[in-house]
Amino acid sequence: MLNFNFYNPTNILFGKGQMSELDNLVPKDAKVLITYGGGSVIKNGVLANVKTELAKSSREVFEFGGIEPNPKFPTLMKAVEVARAEKVDFLLAVGGGSVMDGTKFIAIATVADDFVGREEKLMTYGFAPVPVSSAIPIGTVVTLPATGSEMNCGGVVTYGEDKLPVFSPYTYPKFSILDPELTYTLPAIQVANGVVDSFVHTVEQYITYPVKAGFQDRTSEGILQTLVEVGKQTVDDPTDYDARANLVWCSTMALNGLIGAGVPQDWSIHMIGHEMTALFGVDHAQTLAVLTPAMWRIRRKQKKEKLLQYAERVWNINAGSEDERIDAAIHKTEEFFHSLGIKTRLSDHAIDATGIERIIRGLEKHGMVALSERGDITLDVSRKVLQEAL
Amino acid sequence: MLNFNFYNPTNILFGKGQMSELDNLVPKDAKVLITYGGGSVIKNGVLANVKTELAKSSREVFEFGGIEPNPKFPTLMKAVEVARAEKVDFLLAVGGGSVMDGTKFIAIATVADDFVGREEKLMTYGFAPVPVSSAIPIGTVVTLPATGSEMNCGGVVTYGEDKLPVFSPYTYPKFSILDPELTYTLPAIQVANGVVDSFVHTVEQYITYPVKAGFQDRTSEGILQTLVEVGKQTVDDPTDYDARANLVWCSTMALNGLIGAGVPQDWSIHMIGHEMTALFGVDHAQTLAVLTPAMWRIRRKQKKEKLLQYAERVWNINAGSEDERIDAAIHKTEEFFHSLGIKTRLSDHAIDATGIERIIRGLEKHGMVALSERGDITLDVSRKVLQEAL
Repeated sequence: MLNFNFYNPTNILFGKGQMSELDNLVPKDAKVLITYGGGSVIKNGVLANVKTELAKSSREVFEFGGIEPNPKFPTLMKAVEVARAEKVDFLLAVGGGSVMDGTKFIAIATVADDFVGREEKLMTYGFAPVPVSSAIPIGTVVTLPATGSEMNCGGVVTYGEDKLPVFSPYTYPKFSILDPELTYTLPAIQVANGVVDSFVHTVEQYITYPVKAGFQDRTSEGILQTLVEVGKQTVDDPTDYDARANLVWCSTMALNGLIGAGVPQDWSIHMIGHEMTALFGVDHAQTLAVLTPAMWRIRRKQKKEKLLQYAERVWNINAGSEDERIDAAIHKTEEFFHSLGIKTRLSDHAIDATGIERIIRGLEKHGMVALSERGDITLDVSRKVLQEAL
Repeated sequence: MLNFNFYNPTNILFGKGQMSELDNLVPKDAKVLITYGGGSVIKNGVLANVKTELAKSSREVFEFGGIEPNPKFPTLMKAVEVARAEKVDFLLAVGGGSVMDGTKFIAIATVADDFVGREEKLMTYGFAPVPVSSAIPIGTVVTLPATGSEMNCGGVVTYGEDKLPVFSPYTYPKFSILDPELTYTLPAIQVANGVVDSFVHTVEQYITYPVKAGFQDRTSEGILQTLVEVGKQTVDDPTDYDARANLVWCSTMALNGLIGAGVPQDWSIHMIGHEMTALFGVDHAQTLAVLTPAMWRIRRKQKKEKLLQYAERVWNINAGSEDERIDAAIHKTEEFFHSLGIKTRLSDHAIDATGIERIIRGLEKHGMVALSERGDITLDVSRKVLQEAL
């Protein structure tokens, strides 16, 4: 097991009706800016419920809607202007990963004096923490299970054609309300995306090389098995509470630092996927579904031990040669994504050989020339992965 | 899945050499009281290392040693006197569960104005939180993996013949240093006790009834499987780093709130075991090893679904009738405890029918008359469990 630091102070309130805790969770005299996305929280009544709860104490409440998927820097800077003008001292993100990620940027940018006028510097290539010393406290009400943003301190912001990480130890949400029922009205494709996103978050921290980390491996396998059990069910039957609850909690646990503590991490699938989203607008999760099987086929040698462990423990594949077992596990993974209605080829997204070269140039521009848990995925290897996925 | 609240703000620093972080973790100008037990931390040099690290900044450092296993109220009150007299503002527990538990009591009792002169009121029958509003911040350096106290807010204090819980949301350690190498010098029996303690912490939150909580069930199973894998190995070969690291991390994860969030919890084995320790001085873990198989035999009907799941997923027992599979799983559990050198009968501890009646009177005195995840373990059922364990 590798050395690690694990710290996660977010207070999780999980289950039916937890919205009723909101008045106890947000400071009674706060100036609150509610942030949200394209308006689904207006249609399904969640925003109105949030406002009713906040109105139970003498808070000043402002709103900022319109945070788009893959939240854009100029949009978020408009929210920063509101937060600065109104001297907001609490941010309440109501939505999914994009709203929460964007709100983390707002939380930092609003109070980061050193960065006034050059807020784009708060975004960083690679995963170096941004050098900030404070942020406005954040709470979240989650309406889309996928990114785990509700229980971590990171986010991804789109800056021009770049998808860039933003994070700081100051942007752990103070609390997150996770009521699976708030997610019932999501379109099926967003639920399917959430299943894939959670699945691939897990494998990025698990399909690497073994370091004898029993708890981490088995917890990762437990998340994957649970997602396989409930994935199709919660897409097909959105009001099955237990299936949805399992998706929501697995989604959070997949990216809150727990399963990645003390083990190698990959994240090359995400890095290549970010370029696909930035250049071609492919949904984040759908880039992951395309790249994961291809990555494993190309990297089967480097990831052999963990792919065999994955085959055995997640898919109960014990028969055949090592190569056969690995192939069977990859095939099972593809079948699982397909069962959710998610495609697994670049051609499904009209990306061809020319598109691959654009993705490669994007990776080069962002310094993504030595990816993976071993730092050995050069641009040439990334190209092979993309060609495998054509 | 049941509704739940999960909050755990302890900062974990895990691995070799993490002691070097101590100077960054304890406030530079703190008045620190180091608390420890019977002196093993003097012999193995851990206390000296702690003091060297603390001396790197201008702290005032005091010491209080002699906290015994099953820490006693009068002992802890002596530490409270020191902390009050020296106006200590940080407590650093260096040791195992008893030192950490006792330090939580000291942290509350030192500053709990309402309780001055009646500090015993801070201990509580059952699990109602004590009504306190502050505590001295605590850090821990863990030398014995077992209780999980390093990442939760609870403890158990012995008051006369009573073992009583103490806890408050203010007593989560600010940080815990978990360096598996610091545990190498433990006697084998204490390591074995730690394996059993972690195992039974897990089953108290798992062998109940199913509520479709996929993550929680599979994470519990992962802890149990990992303990089975490494248990005997880490008792027999104390300097095998990875085996010990897996024990240490499983021990923490078994009782930090994670696996119990959103599922029913039992704890009747612990409640009966506490009486055995208070009355007969049996090591805590050894009471659990005696009571767990007996509890499952008596409660096989109420726990049927989870016992069958445990048989299948932890022990790979798939053949035979339901009763046969349950019996096989209980037998495997006993064999596992025996492999660690831990006995599983009351008679191994010279407790007979008369002793059982004393335990029953203890349970009655402490109001433990409706135990278990269903609240249906009366004194008569507890008696049956104890008789089964004779």
